[in-house]
Order: sequence, then C-alpha cells, then structure tokens
Amino acid sequence: MRNNSVTTAVMTAPGKFDVRQYPYPEIDHASLVIELEMCGICGTDKHTFRGETVQFAGTPAESHTPFPIIPGHEIVGRVAEIGRTASTSLEFSGQKLLVGDRVVMCPDILCGKCYYCKNTFGFPLCEKVRGYGNAFCCDEPPHLLGGWSDYIYVRPDAFVYRVPDELDARIAVMAELMAVTYNLDKAKELYTMGGEGFGSGGTVVIQGVGPMGLMHVAKAHILGAGRIIAIDRSDYRLRFAKDFGADDTISLNGTTQAERVEAVRALTDGRGADVVVECTGAAEAIPEGLEMARRGGTYVVAGVFADVGEIPINPHRHFLANQIRLLGMTNHPPSGYVNSMKLLARYRGVFPFDRFVTDEFPLNQIDKAMERAFDIDRAMKVVVTPSEG
Amino acid sequence: MRNNSVTTAVMTAPGKFDVRQYPYPEIDHASLVIELEMCGICGTDKHTFRGETVQFAGTPAESHTPFPIIPGHEIVGRVAEIGRTASTSLEFSGQKLLVGDRVVMCPDILCGKCYYCKNTFGFPLCEKVRGYGNAFCCDEPPHLLGGWSDYIYVRPDAFVYRVPDELDARIAVMAELMAVTYNLDKAKELYTMGGEGFGSGGTVVIQGVGPMGLMHVAKAHILGAGRIIAIDRSDYRLRFAKDFGADDTISLNGTTQAERVEAVRALTDGRGADVVVECTGAAEAIPEGLEMARRGGTYVVAGVFADVGEIPINPHRHFLANQIRLLGMTNHPPSGYVNSMKLLARYRGVFPFDRFVTDEFPLNQIDKAMERAFDIDRAMKVVVTPSEG
Amino acid sequence: MRNNSVTTAVMTAPGKFDVRQYPYPEIDHASLVIELEMCGICGTDKHTFRGETVQFAGTPAESHTPFPIIPGHEIVGRVAEIGRTASTSLEFSGQKLLVGDRVVMCPDILCGKCYYCKNTFGFPLCEKVRGYGNAFCCDEPPHLLGGWSDYIYVRPDAFVYRVPDELDARIAVMAELMAVTYNLDKAKELYTMGGEGFGSGGTVVIQGVGPMGLMHVAKAHILGAGRIIAIDRSDYRLRFAKDFGADDTISLNGTTQAERVEAVRALTDGRGADVVVECTGAAEAIPEGLEMARRGGTYVVAGVFADVGEIPINPHRHFLANQIRLLGMTNHPPSGYVNSMKLLARYRGVFPFDRFVTDEFPLNQIDKAMERAFDIDRAMKVVVTPSEG
Amino acid sequence: MRNNSVTTAVMTAPGKFDVRQYPYPEIDHASLVIELEMCGICGTDKHTFRGETVQFAGTPAESHTPFPIIPGHEIVGRVAEIGRTASTSLEFSGQKLLVGDRVVMCPDILCGKCYYCKNTFGFPLCEKVRGYGNAFCCDEPPHLLGGWSDYIYVRPDAFVYRVPDELDARIAVMAELMAVTYNLDKAKELYTMGGEGFGSGGTVVIQGVGPMGLMHVAKAHILGAGRIIAIDRSDYRLRFAKDFGADDTISLNGTTQAERVEAVRALTDGRGADVVVECTGAAEAIPEGLEMARRGGTYVVAGVFADVGEIPINPHRHFLANQIRLLGMTNHPPSGYVNSMKLLARYRGVFPFDRFVTDEFPLNQIDKAMERAFDIDRAMKVVVTPSEG
Repeated sequence: MRNNSVTTAVMTAPGKFDVRQYPYPEIDHASLVIELEMCGICGTDKHTFRGETVQFAGTPAESHTPFPIIPGHEIVGRVAEIGRTASTSLEFSGQKLLVGDRVVMCPDILCGKCYYCKNTFGFPLCEKVRGYGNAFCCDEPPHLLGGWSDYIYVRPDAFVYRVPDELDARIAVMAELMAVTYNLDKAKELYTMGGEGFGSGGTVVIQGVGPMGLMHVAKAHILGAGRIIAIDRSDYRLRFAKDFGADDTISLNGTTQAERVEAVRALTDGRGADVVVECTGAAEAIPEGLEMARRGGTYVVAGVFADVGEIPINPHRHFLANQIRLLGMTNHPPSGYVNSMKLLARYRGVFPFDRFVTDEFPLNQIDKAMERAFDIDRAMKVVVTPSEG
Repeated sequence: MRNNSVTTAVMTAPGKFDVRQYPYPEIDHASLVIELEMCGICGTDKHTFRGETVQFAGTPAESHTPFPIIPGHEIVGRVAEIGRTASTSLEFSGQKLLVGDRVVMCPDILCGKCYYCKNTFGFPLCEKVRGYGNAFCCDEPPHLLGGWSDYIYVRPDAFVYRVPDELDARIAVMAELMAVTYNLDKAKELYTMGGEGFGSGGTVVIQGVGPMGLMHVAKAHILGAGRIIAIDRSDYRLRFAKDFGADDTISLNGTTQAERVEAVRALTDGRGADVVVECTGAAEAIPEGLEMARRGGTYVVAGVFADVGEIPINPHRHFLANQIRLLGMTNHPPSGYVNSMKLLARYRGVFPFDRFVTDEFPLNQIDKAMERAFDIDRAMKVVVTPSEG
Repeated sequence: MRNNSVTTAVMTAPGKFDVRQYPYPEIDHASLVIELEMCGICGTDKHTFRGETVQFAGTPAESHTPFPIIPGHEIVGRVAEIGRTASTSLEFSGQKLLVGDRVVMCPDILCGKCYYCKNTFGFPLCEKVRGYGNAFCCDEPPHLLGGWSDYIYVRPDAFVYRVPDELDARIAVMAELMAVTYNLDKAKELYTMGGEGFGSGGTVVIQGVGPMGLMHVAKAHILGAGRIIAIDRSDYRLRFAKDFGADDTISLNGTTQAERVEAVRALTDGRGADVVVECTGAAEAIPEGLEMARRGGTYVVAGVFADVGEIPINPHRHFLANQIRLLGMTNHPPSGYVNSMKLLARYRGVFPFDRFVTDEFPLNQIDKAMERAFDIDRAMKVVVTPSEG
Repeated sequence: MRNNSVTTAVMTAPGKFDVRQYPYPEIDHASLVIELEMCGICGTDKHTFRGETVQFAGTPAESHTPFPIIPGHEIVGRVAEIGRTASTSLEFSGQKLLVGDRVVMCPDILCGKCYYCKNTFGFPLCEKVRGYGNAFCCDEPPHLLGGWSDYIYVRPDAFVYRVPDELDARIAVMAELMAVTYNLDKAKELYTMGGEGFGSGGTVVIQGVGPMGLMHVAKAHILGAGRIIAIDRSDYRLRFAKDFGADDTISLNGTTQAERVEAVRALTDGRGADVVVECTGAAEAIPEGLEMARRGGTYVVAGVFADVGEIPINPHRHFLANQIRLLGMTNHPPSGYVNSMKLLARYRGVFPFDRFVTDEFPLNQIDKAMERAFDIDRAMKVVVTPSEG
C-alpha cells in the first residue's frame, strides 16, 4: 500500500528549506500522480533561493513567489495513479498512459482563455501562466505542485509526455531544458539568405554554459551551426561545453569585456557572431553580448528569468547602429517536448548526455544539493531524488 | 551657359554654418549632376547640428562627421548634366535618364564588396556605408556631395530614381522618409497568426511624430493597422498626426510616463500595442516605449540615428518577461524608393501630403531654416531651396 | 413565447431543397441559440449544390456531405437564449454575452486533441475539422447546425463573436469572408526585401471576383498593395471590383489565356504579379494564374474548396523555373474574426461595403435564392433571411 | 610552358560528344584561368544529354541549349593564371588568390541590372541568368566556359571561392551540390511553432537519392531533422542514403505509389512528412510526393531542372485540402558556397563524404563517363578528369 504521507523539500523563504510531510493527494478522473525518480535544480530555483522572486515583471503574469513552495519543475518519474479519462486524454501526443509509464511534464499551466491563449496558443504568452515548482503555495491542497517531492500531483490542465523507452531517467530529466533551446529554433526562423538568425554554417555564441547554456551549445550543433563559442567563468563548465559541441571557449577569468568581444570578432572574420544567446541570468552580460553580435545579428535574452535589476544600454550603439534583432524569450512551447526527447535519443551517441547529471541528492539533503548546484566548478546538473528510507 | 560657381550651405562645425562657393563639378561618362529643387532638413542633420556627430557607433561603419560638410540628403531636383553611360545605367529601375528629368536619390553609398554587401545586398548593412550630406568632407573635390547646394554631384555608385510625373517636388522630397518607413514592413514580416509584428487590424504606437514619425503614421495606416496611436510633446504635431491617419494621440505635456503607458493599455484592451516605433531620437523614450508594447510585441528603435548616450534598461522586465522582439533599424533599402513613390502617388488623396513641407528657405538663409526646423510647434518639414539671385 | 417549431431550408441531395420544421433545441449551461438575421450563400454551398461534395480530399479530415444538411455558415443573428456559463465563456474575446446581442460565428469546429490542434492551434489544420452548414446531418438532434434556418444551435466548442455596435447585419455578414482574406496576410508574411509575398506597393492579382474574390480585392488594398488586378468573366463583377479597390480589370470574355497573361505582364513592367490569388473554384484557373506570377512570386490556391478534378501542370515551367511559392489555403483562423470586424468598421467609408449584399430571400424561397446566387451578372452576395410569416 | 591547345569534351547535340581542342584563352586584368582537377556530371548534364534542353521555361530567362557546348559546372581546380585586379577582387569572400590556389566556382552568371538583381540580390532570380557548362556555345571565344575541359576561363563577373586547405578535390567537388541544399534552409525558414517547414526533430522525405538527393539527406541531418526518409529505385543508392544519414528507405521496386505513401505515413504517426523534397527530375514524382506531405507540409520542387512535360494535379486534393506550401527552387545562392565548404569540412567525420565520388574518367572517355553516370546501380557521383597524356 502506498504511504499516505509524502515527503517534500519546502522552500519557506529565500535561502530557507524545511523537509515536510503532506498527505498523498486524491485524484479525480482527469488527473494523475507521478512518483518521482528525480527532479533537477534549475536556474529559476537558484534565482528564488537568492531572493530574486519577481517573475514576469511588468506583465499581466507578474508573480511574486508565494512562500512556502515546493520548488522543482525538471521532472521525471513514473505514473503512480491515474484517473479514468486522464489515461487517454492527458498525454500530450495522444498516447495512452498506464501506471508505471515513465513521464516528464511541462511546468507551465496556461489559462486557455486570455487573448494570448486564444490568438497565439502554443507558446506561453498566457497572461495567467503559472509554473509548477514556483507559483503554487504548498500550504493549500493538493500541496504537491513541485518536483522536490516523492510524489507530484498532475492537474487536468497540465501537459504530460510519455518518455521513449530508450531514454533513462538521467537523460529524460533534460527534456525541459532541451525544450527551452527552442530559443535557437526561434532565432533560426529569422534566417533569410544571410540576413538574420543563423544559417547552416553560421556562428553562435552562448554566454554562460551552465546546464541551460550547455543544452544551447548542443542544440546549436544539432541545428547546423558552423562555429559555436562558449563563454563562462568556470573552466569546468567550458570543458563540458567542448564535449557538448563548442568549437571555442572564452573564459571570463583574466579577460576584460573588451578582450572577450575582440576574441569573438577574431573568431568570426572580424564581424561578430550571427546569434548570441544570454544564458547567464546576469544583467551585466547583456551589453557585453550585444557587442559580440554582428551587424544585423540576433541577440536572445533567455537567462534573466527573474528580475535582477537594471543595466545601462546605449540604444544607438547597441540596437540601432548594429541593426540588432533582440528576442526576449521566457518559457518554451509545450509542443516542444516530444521533439526534445526525440533529439535526446537521436544524439545520445554524439554528445555525452549521460554525463549531464553530475550529482544526485535525496530530498532530505536539499541544503547540500543546493550548495552543490551553486558550485559551478564542480557541478553541472544537480538533481533531487526521492527521500531516503 | 551654366554658372561655374555653385552656392552651398556648409556646416563647418556643430551649430556653425557658412555659405560657400565651389566649382561646378566635371562629370565622366558614368556620373551626373542634379540641379536641386529642394532638400529637406532631417533629424540626422539636427543631430549633427547639436554635436551628436558619431554614427554607427561600435560598428565597422562607425563615422565621425568630417567637418566641413554640405549637409542634406532628402533631395529632389532635375538632371542638369549626364554622362553617356549614366543615361542608361544609373537609374535604379532601369529607366533612361535625360537632362531635365526630375529625380530623387538614396543617400547611401555601399561598397559592394564587404561580407554584408555580398551576403545581404538590398539593405545597407554595408561595413563601409557612407551617406551623402554626412560622410563626405566638402574640402575635397568633387565637393558637392550634400543637398544644401544649388547642384549636387552624383557618383556612379549612387542610387538615383526618376520621379513619376504626377508627383511634384514637395511630395517627391518625402521619398526618402517614406522609404525609411520600411521599418514597418520589416515589423510586419514578423507577423504570424497574431504572434508578432502586426496584422491587419493590429495596433501601432509611434513615439514622436516629427516628419519621420508622421510618415510612419501614414505607413501604418497604409499597411492596414487597426489603431494608430501618436505620441509627442507638440500639439501642433499631434494634430498633424491625426490628419495623417492617427486614431489617437497622447501628449507628453502634463502626463507622466506611467500615465502614458496606462493610456496606451487603455486603448488596447489592457494589453499594450502590437508594435511600437521609436521616432524620437531620444534615449529616454526607449524604456517608456518598451512598456507600451504587449507581450510578444515588437519594438523598433529607429530614431536614435546618432550616439545620444545610455539609458538604464531592466532586461528581465523590458525584454524577457514580455518576450519583446526588438529591431534596431538604421537606414533603409535602396530598393524601397520605387515603391515609396508609388505609395506617395497612390495615397495623395487620402493623406494631405501637400501640407507636409511647411517651410522653404533659400540656402543662404540656412540659419533661419535650421532654427525653424527645431521649432516643433510651428514646423513639420523644413526644406532648403536654391540660393537666391 | 418562442415558437417551438423552427423553419429551415434543407438540402436533401445536390440540387434539391426542402423546407422543413425542426424542434427548437434545448440548451445546457455551456451552449446558446442564435435567432438568425441573415446567412450568406457561399461558394462552398454552390459546390455542394452542384454535387462537388468531397472536401479536404486525401486528408484525415476528408468529408463527404452527409445529406440531408441545413446549409449556410456566413451567419449573423442575435442571441435568443444562452446558458449560464456560455454567457461568460463562449464569446471568443472574452466579452459577456446577453440575450439580444448581435453575434457572428466561425463555422469550424476543431477537435482540440489532434496533432495539429496541439501543435498549431489557431489555424484549422485540425484532422477532424467539421463545418457548420456542411458536415452535420440534420436528421439528428440538435438538427440546427446550419445557417439557412430561423434559429441555429451553438455548441460549447464553437467560436462566437460579438458584433461591434457600429456594424449592421448586412456588413456583419461579411465577417467570415473578411476572415478568409487572411490568405493575403499569410502571403504577406513571406515578404522579405522584395523577395516573396508582397510588400507595400506590390502587385496582387485576384482571379475571380465573386464575393470571396471581392473581399480579397478590398483586403489587398487595405494591406497596401500598389496595384490590384481583378479577373472575371462578368462585367458586373468587374465593376464591383473597381469600387472595392481594383486598379485594373481583365475580362475572360473575348480574351485568350495567353492574352490575359500578357495583360498582367504589361501592367507589371513585363514581370508578372507579386501575388496571385485563385478565388474561382475552377481547376483550370490554376495554370493560367501560375503564368501570371513573377519569378519568385506567390500563388495562393484558395477557391477550389471542393474536389473539382485534375488539371495538367508542368512542374518545371509552373513551379521550378519561376521559383513559385504556392500556398494551399483552406479555412481561416478563428482568431481572425475580431480583426475582420474591426476592418469592416474602419473601411466602411472607403469601400461601399453596404452594397455587398445585393439580394435577400426568405428561406422558404431558397430555390430562387440559389438561382440568383449563380447569376454572376446580377448578384454579388445573396443572403437567406428568416422564413416569412 | 603551358600547352597552347586545350582539350575539351564537347556535346554537339543531345547524346553526341566530340573531343575538341581550343586555344588557351587570353585573360585581362579582371579574369583568371583554372586548371581543372575534376568536374562532376550533374543531373542537368543528363537532362541535356537526353534532349531535355529547355531550361527556365516560360520565364524571361528561358534558354535552349546552344549546341555545341562544353558541359560541366561542378568544378574544382587550381588557379593557372590570374589578372592583376582579379587577384584581389574575384574571390567571393575577399581572399587574395594566387596561382596554384585551389578553387571552386558557382556556375551562375547574373546580370546585376534586372529587377531581380536590384531587388533580390543573393539568389539567382536574375532574368538573364546564364550557366557555365550550359548556356554558352563553345564556338565563340573564349570557348572554355564549361568544366569538361583541361582549363576553364573565369569571367570577371563570375563567382569564385578559395577551397579550405583541409578539403581535397574529391570533397571540394561537392561544394555546388551542398550549396543546392539551400533548398532545405529555405524550407526551414517557413518553420514557426510546428506550423510549416520543419523544426528540429521534424521529418524530411527525399525523393530520389542520386548525388543531389544524397546531399539533401546529409543536409537534413545537419539541420536537425528527427527522421529522414529516402526514396529511390536503386538499392545501391538507398544504401548510400543510409550512410549519409537517412533513417529509413523506401524502394520504388515492388511497391505501388499508394504503398509508398502509406509507408511514409506509417513512419510519421499517420500524418505524412513535414517536408518532402523532389530530387528526381521526373514529373510523375510530384503528385506522389505531394501525397506524402502532412497537412500544412512543405513540398520542394528541386529536381526537374529542365522541361520534362506535364503531369495531372488535383488542386483541391494536392494543394488546398492539405494546405500545402510548395516551393519551386532553381539554382542556389552564390553566397552559399562559403558555408557549404565549411559544412563539408565540419561533417567529414560524420558522413563518408570521401566515398561520394565513385568514378573518375578522363575527359577523352566522356562516353564511358556518361554511360556510368546513368548507371544508378553502380555509380553515385561520376567526375570527369583532365585529358590523358
């Protein structure tokens, strides 16, 4: 019989954790429960931990973390219990779901009724978007709406995806981040005859090669980029980037901004890169990255997922003179997961995806897990696993 | 016989003019000379006058005004003399040119050899782009490479366009600014099923409705926008905007930034505009305009043609959270003039294009002309005409 | 009290009508009933009448008309009765609906679950798309799923739109056709620097200017086309086209295909049009229209909504050599109606939209109505109105 | 000293060859001469050999092979002699060229003056495009404008590209075909959120995997396709396709059209492919391929480079009902060669590019070479090498 008490790692305030028990949730015909195998620690979780708790600032979706929460949204697990209709209706691509099937989920819950849902479905511009692991206070039932838990409750309006048999949990846990690299598919859309975005053979710079940046490196390679340049302050991460497809790396250590910009230009016949993607979460990376783009180049702001303050920008120099195309990208499309997992399966032999998860901690060691996640010289992806004994 | 001495209005330093004589230029088989009818005073000329003399900052095309110059590039005039091959080769669309034909020209001289010219011809991303009225010191022959002059020398590598017979000079002088509104054609390209850019029926905000902004108002109307909102500090200009197709106007006078942002939202079902175009030349307009765009909205930086310094931007709030698509637009395509003049002819009856030029000054009254051009409550487009007697 | 028996015009087989009574439908909390003011006769209805009864041939949505049906889907009417939740949930843009409100509806019912609905929501690529007035046999309850009726039943999964107060019924009835002209918004998306689609100032040919083609003429004008050429066999329709914005007309009478192709080229500097839209419903129009497009031109197949057989095409000549971009367009986005009605309101003074409906027949005179609809020299849009007495 | 008499393989009429001598050409300051290492036999050459001699039919560029010609345009060789200015001006990306440098060239000569060159430079929509190896009668000086020759004369208006040192001749000879796969970059441009073109993880069908189709297989892989299906009648070629990245193959032998269409659907969850590319040169492949595309799928007509007659198409079924996006693609952009060679170098270790050239024949054995080129069960790319002794 299933344990009626579910262990979770709760963030009660920025920087503060508590291991708590919640009742195992009741499901109706349209929902299900996942028994978790693991759940990643994501940059968003780190923003929240540091007290950067405002998301979607200035938009109708603006949110302030409703502590206490159960963090975590890079989820992989197995169906523990499933409602009658959920079995045939909840899997995104229409597959039947049975108890024991391995699944991942998209953290975003979309309202389906606002202007954006009506006019641009498929991408979470939703005015009322709310994220698992982030937007739901765990004081209220069904409590279990975050991934650092033994079980997670899946609402009828969530998006769940069956994991192909050939992917084990340590690779399937990358599905969300691979879906996030839709950023590069988007940049690629802009490509027309050398004008914008990047074509096959073009140059892509990734600023910051933590887990999210690393997946962008691999995706740039998958999409046919001709030269991929990774930038980071951690040599450990830069070596990872090389293994995931980067051609060149530039360290923040011992270099000035001007030297790094010059280094990118030197690698691109003096021009700058076709596409630069910010995966750092740091505002100061942005003017630096804008200088690294070529004329008509594309700059993707993808990492500053929480409000981290202002930075001075010179609109003539950074936008107009260079004819920059800048894309602010938050979230990713629910429709991207199926192909994400196809790519993870297809490129397992090309990139060492099995080394992506570097550390596993049971959720009752959440403090250690989080500490490791911040150690950019020792860890790539840290995941939280079920509670021990 | 033609006068051998050509009168010009020379800018010798920011804010300083001198009326000078230069020899009438010799032409070869591939060039021509235009006898000017009029030449507009453009925002770029005003930037230079104020000492904002760095253009294309931070790019390979970066330029610093090489005083003394003959300013002026919104040119209309008649062919005064034409070389043998120029007669059949110089007109952009392949029309034959004869002495007496009315023409306009594109100010940009492209190198034709750099990466951008080779890979993206059609839009001046050229690394070595140089502009008539701006980038050529008039100390050196052929001297006459600016429009505030009785004659202008047209290089073999320039772009010249025959004016349709139905356009008189006061409308033809708008050709360049109408070509600049390609900014909106570009924004429209991004439109896909409500996602980005603007579709027919969409909302467009124009920040600043001087001559350049005013043409954007008309163009937004021509492209099927459903609601056009003009913003300016001058009631005179806002009235003009209404006559050129704006549905709503917002004055900077007596309103705060927050009130203006709220006013735009109130006009757009609370969402913000699909597209916002900066036509102000002022850095501080940019964060305000970014707040006026809806989620996934498009922001076009078009007015800060010279370096006017920095402004604080919040990358989470202004770019990522709202999923902004920002386009930096400098220059315009040489291929845009033919259609620009078609549009000027087609919409003469719809918009009062004949009221666009509000003031004419002979070039020996250049100081008065410039003073008037800065008087945003009395003048729309001020033009310089040939020297008197 | 409401009459419990609803009069309808039923098509029992191709070419055969019967006026029948059905019970007034019962609604639940999520549906509503419209009392019709009028409903257009559309080209699709004419296809069905002629026995061209296969739609979406060769696709998962392939349908064969399930006679008997109540035809008609260009619907305008007033809310007669409305369920409790429908009042706040059914209107597309989120407006509250009350009894007496004027509404239009989109005929398409989408499944919401297939690959296309999941991945490309917003455009009816739906594998199971079914249309009001077409895909529902009226033998079964709720019977009233077509517009040639005194009342129509609106399912909870249908799309309904409140009509702006300034539009009377004879203009609101155009909403669907205006939404269909999304064809041109789509073609415009392809535009990049003169390459494809059409820019402002470009040339658009409309083959066939019955009601659907006529709306495309107006829309091309609204979108800033520089020259619009209408082709038809009826001088009556060609005069209409001139009034709705066509610059030039070409009659099929007394001209050969080669002459018409030549006429289009003569109007386009010898090049052919940027965009050609087939609005004829006749297969033989297609090779002719393909010859009218310029190199790299865009050809939209929009009129052959039912299977009308084969036509010989030369793939080298018609596709490859000319680098044609061909778009097959069926249906239109549900999200297009709001802007459609905005455009109808905005351009009422520019185009004589009030002359679009030329004939009204009560539904018990359906035979006369259909006969008139086929009389292309006397009628533009024929509508069916409620039964008499 | 250089031999003053140059040996060439001349096609004097369809199916007829003659080995002829021409004088070594004189160059001026702006042109150069290449000593050939090898030159491929292309599908276009085979069309001409079979008497399919009309190209660009129905367009202003329509051409009829002006026999006698020196065929061949997939060229690789070394600079034998070079004019003074050619040395610094002729190489596309601005590199200096010296005698002995290995180069490839783009066969297309563009006029630079027509509407298309002015408005859409970068892609040979040119009204007057003429191809090396095809459009120049060799009776007239400089005679040597085709690749089946010991030397080739390079006009000042041609496009020449220096070969990276790491590419040997047998790989460099693939540069043009790799540039032709721009077809897929183009199809990818249409991708927006699952709607059109193909995203990473999408499905691509290549009809016909001779040399051109084979390169499309590799390119689809490079661009991140998730499933690549190759179709051909030769098992030899299908095995090649597997080695170049195809996931699945379908043979024309022993299958009906309906079975092949069904096979594609079975591999794509019943939907059909996102993109289908015709690389067969056979008209009858087109309706079959159109049936293989999913709703909203993209069909690229790329192989029927010469007029091969008509085929019946059902416009409702093949275009409208399925919402097909069809792209007719002829030629390829001159700007594509630099990146083509980058990709050849980058993916040498992934695909067995060194096996692509299967047969080499000296040009005095041109009959044998051509016979082998038609033997689709024994040869992939057949190249012509310099004359013996």
